[in-house]
Amino acid sequence: MTKRPNPPTLLTMHGLEWDGSRLAVVDRPVPTATDDLAVVRVTLAGICNTDLEIAKGYMGFRGILGHEFVGVVESGPAGWLGRRVVGEINFACQTCDYCRRGLGRHCPTRTVMGILGADGAIAEYVAVPVANLHTVPDSISDDVAVFAEPLAAAFEVLEQVAIEPGIECTVLGDGKLGLLIAQVLHQAGAKVTAVGKHNNKLALLRRHGICAVRFDDWNRAANNLVVEATGSAEGFAMALAATRPRGTLVLKSTVAGNMSLNLAPVVINEISIVGSRCGSFPPAVEGLARGIDVVSLISDRFALNNAVAALRRASEPGVLKVLIDPLARV
Amino acid sequence: MTKRPNPPTLLTMHGLEWDGSRLAVVDRPVPTATDDLAVVRVTLAGICNTDLEIAKGYMGFRGILGHEFVGVVESGPAGWLGRRVVGEINFACQTCDYCRRGLGRHCPTRTVMGILGADGAIAEYVAVPVANLHTVPDSISDDVAVFAEPLAAAFEVLEQVAIEPGIECTVLGDGKLGLLIAQVLHQAGAKVTAVGKHNNKLALLRRHGICAVRFDDWNRAANNLVVEATGSAEGFAMALAATRPRGTLVLKSTVAGNMSLNLAPVVINEISIVGSRCGSFPPAVEGLARGIDVVSLISDRFALNNAVAALRRASEPGVLKVLIDPLARV
Repeated sequence: MTKRPNPPTLLTMHGLEWDGSRLAVVDRPVPTATDDLAVVRVTLAGICNTDLEIAKGYMGFRGILGHEFVGVVESGPAGWLGRRVVGEINFACQTCDYCRRGLGRHCPTRTVMGILGADGAIAEYVAVPVANLHTVPDSISDDVAVFAEPLAAAFEVLEQVAIEPGIECTVLGDGKLGLLIAQVLHQAGAKVTAVGKHNNKLALLRRHGICAVRFDDWNRAANNLVVEATGSAEGFAMALAATRPRGTLVLKSTVAGNMSLNLAPVVINEISIVGSRCGSFPPAVEGLARGIDVVSLISDRFALNNAVAALRRASEPGVLKVLIDPLARV
Repeated sequence: MTKRPNPPTLLTMHGLEWDGSRLAVVDRPVPTATDDLAVVRVTLAGICNTDLEIAKGYMGFRGILGHEFVGVVESGPAGWLGRRVVGEINFACQTCDYCRRGLGRHCPTRTVMGILGADGAIAEYVAVPVANLHTVPDSISDDVAVFAEPLAAAFEVLEQVAIEPGIECTVLGDGKLGLLIAQVLHQAGAKVTAVGKHNNKLALLRRHGICAVRFDDWNRAANNLVVEATGSAEGFAMALAATRPRGTLVLKSTVAGNMSLNLAPVVINEISIVGSRCGSFPPAVEGLARGIDVVSLISDRFALNNAVAALRRASEPGVLKVLIDPLARV
């Protein structure tokens, strides 16, 4: 199979690079498509907390940042050309034990877009294996579709834990992920209590009929299902105390580094702790089409040339999703 | 219903008491039976590491120690009189949500024999709710039957985790519990690698065809199922590193107090951590009848009057089960 050439009209592109010490919008060659690899013209990208962590040294990543995007296939296999797509971020070998079980997200030789050994999507173009692409229905706008990746991480909870209708559950944390998880569990039939710090964020959930309270107002009643999505070191102990004996605590926060923890209650109360990371995209794309509210999470948007300022903005307290528009000129 | 009186021939008994500062064999009234509560004449009791922890202040317990025993029902409901029995140690309310689900071991108002609000079995007599008693088949000697409680804790793993035949699993720790868990998983069809510190303890497993290696000789290959039974703070990190992505880590060690832990790999690798404590007795009694090797775990035995020395002996390195015989003199 012959490799396709770059589109002749564009040889370089802009992208937000972390070089290990500095963030900057730089010029880079446009990636090259192959029969397995599409080049997607990014129409909108999102900033995730992981991007902020990477720009502090997390994962030792060097390259173009970003793993939340929607775009149009510019080059690659003919069947994909011109399609509006989102893409799963774990680039897997497709042959190992994990890949054969449909768990390429755990492929031991994977690279991960914008996180581990593969350039990301805060750029004009991003290269994505065709196996990772999902077509976006016309009913979903770019502003909505760009949430496919974080929403898939929220839907991952449903893949790991059986939700019986009416099960009472607690979601700790009113960051982007916590707000998505609370909605996903609510739609799945759980009776959700969301607990967070910010009344304005919690109000978003209340609009959808979800009980949402500030930590100060929380009765701390223990439940059989608790999701920890605070992103803080204190969140784990709080979540553990709020999990009933024989209950399940879903861990969503990756807190880098060591914490001081007491695991004795896990044993005494026979609690199951379920680590939960990325999810598969089809349920997320369906969820977006069904109207899970993501647009209310958009706090701000920036042109690609201002991506450094966009990351700064995303790190401010109380800010939810910050989007980057590669087409905007500022 | 009228309460039955104490047996007229014995008004006091000996028992090993922890009064919060001191261990001593003391005289105590023989407990009184009711229609729901049997008084068991203890013929053999075992010392558990939890007893050693309690004698350092764990659980704030005060009273007669011990929760591993076999004995004969001396007074109580007529149907039980004279029966040789073992007894589950969680004394539950029988009416709450947990009790109705068969999980009295998690009843929030339970007392626990020799651990929480109920006198224990390192004594001539112990009071046990009739609901907690299990008859011991004649084929099982007292030396074997006294292991019903710790073996039930080992069988609890099978109740919590599905064991597919041939599944490769790692059991960390060659203490009493680790040795029992390795045998239970082996008999259930798992391909067990047991890892420990003491060649003489590991040799016991090798005699039963179980692969058993010292930590220094362990290849640290990751498995889908890992059981942490080292009883040490370092065990958790080692067990986590030995659990494959999407695998299960069963936590058996109750390490009191805080440890410094990094939970990020739990999230990234989507590992499930399953806390595991006491188990129900019927599978354990069957396991004993089927020949799970417990007799090889007996390191020493003492008369009840020497119970303080027995606990000292049980705390020595390399010692496995120490038994206490209330019938022996000296």
